[in-house]
Amino acid sequence: MTASTDCCNSNLSSPLSHEVAAELAGAFKALADPARLRLLSLIASRPGAEVCVCELTPQFELSQPTVSHHLKVLREAGLIDCQRRGTWVYYWAIPAALQRLSGVLITTEAFA
Amino acid sequence: MTASTDCCNSNLSSPLSHEVAAELAGAFKALADPARLRLLSLIASRPGAEVCVCELTPQFELSQPTVSHHLKVLREAGLIDCQRRGTWVYYWAIPAALQRLSGVLITTEAFA
Repeated sequence: MTASTDCCNSNLSSPLSHEVAAELAGAFKALADPARLRLLSLIASRPGAEVCVCELTPQFELSQPTVSHHLKVLREAGLIDCQRRGTWVYYWAIPAALQRLSGVLITTEAFA
Repeated sequence: MTASTDCCNSNLSSPLSHEVAAELAGAFKALADPARLRLLSLIASRPGAEVCVCELTPQFELSQPTVSHHLKVLREAGLIDCQRRGTWVYYWAIPAALQRLSGVLITTEAFA
């Protein structure tokens, strides 16, 4: 876990503040779309690797601009990042961000 | 973990199918609102206990019908359940459902 996530390890074992709830709701909104979840899974299932947008688009019955929009939402939520090299953009997941969201949903009882 | 979650322990270590992504997106949509996240945290932070709606409403600058609507969304997503007794409705969290969503966000790399 990186320093940027140490400050925000809230979870459902205690009531969330307004501020933390607002921030987390934005991240969950990025996950609240089937195409974005599939995109994220296609990227995150190759840990340590980059995935070319040219590999992602053919797996969706969506236009390239629509796929790019969904990728932008995931990127703005801090769940993935990307780099353009030549013609294509390459994406990778940010495990610490996913781990933080995963940790939010932990309750005392869930693992009792 | 209950039998109902054993069938659906997908996570981001492999690409999600269309069907699983659609179902999970609906659950994440329920979390994509600050008031719902706060409500869920107020309920889930008291494991094994029920929380009266009469305790929840005063903690929000929202009307009771609005709070009830948010609670209904969380209930329809399978994250909480409730029982009416007399004047009030009592809510409790469903840890297995939260644990399942938490597990979805696990990648191979996150815990490497």
